[in-house]
Amino acid sequence: MKAKVLVTLKTGVLDPQGKAVQHALAALGFFGVNDVRQGKLIELDIDETDPAKARESVETMCRSLLANTVIENYTIDLAD
Amino acid sequence: MKAKVLVTLKTGVLDPQGKAVQHALAALGFFGVNDVRQGKLIELDIDETDPAKARESVETMCRSLLANTVIENYTIDLAD
Repeated sequence: MKAKVLVTLKTGVLDPQGKAVQHALAALGFFGVNDVRQGKLIELDIDETDPAKARESVETMCRSLLANTVIENYTIDLAD
Repeated sequence: MKAKVLVTLKTGVLDPQGKAVQHALAALGFFGVNDVRQGKLIELDIDETDPAKARESVETMCRSLLANTVIENYTIDLAD
């Protein structure tokens, strides 16, 4: 089973990487870009085939390694 | 309009960051993780309100800055 984890910074947390991208876009002539936030995408291929168990397992992975829950949110998408 | 860009490494391109995550998960006792690939999520807030024009603009941003199309693929999701 495949799991897609999106890790994003919480609202209010500064995102210097996103700001750098925003400035680079402006320097390249892309105007009208009000905000850029950069996050992480983590694609997992796991053995577990039961969706409920897989989600629970990936949740635990997120809380213990993949995301820093103090400053980051995560969402989990499961696909066969 | 909000645009979500997912940048992933093309199949066959080595992903040392993903491998590091995979090994860290194994070290934490998560078994049954066959593969991990890490990519980038870039969230843009743009002025353009026409979906077709917004997609075209974000496509150009991807090709010129956000993704390295030699080794990376990108997908664009638009939301109001």
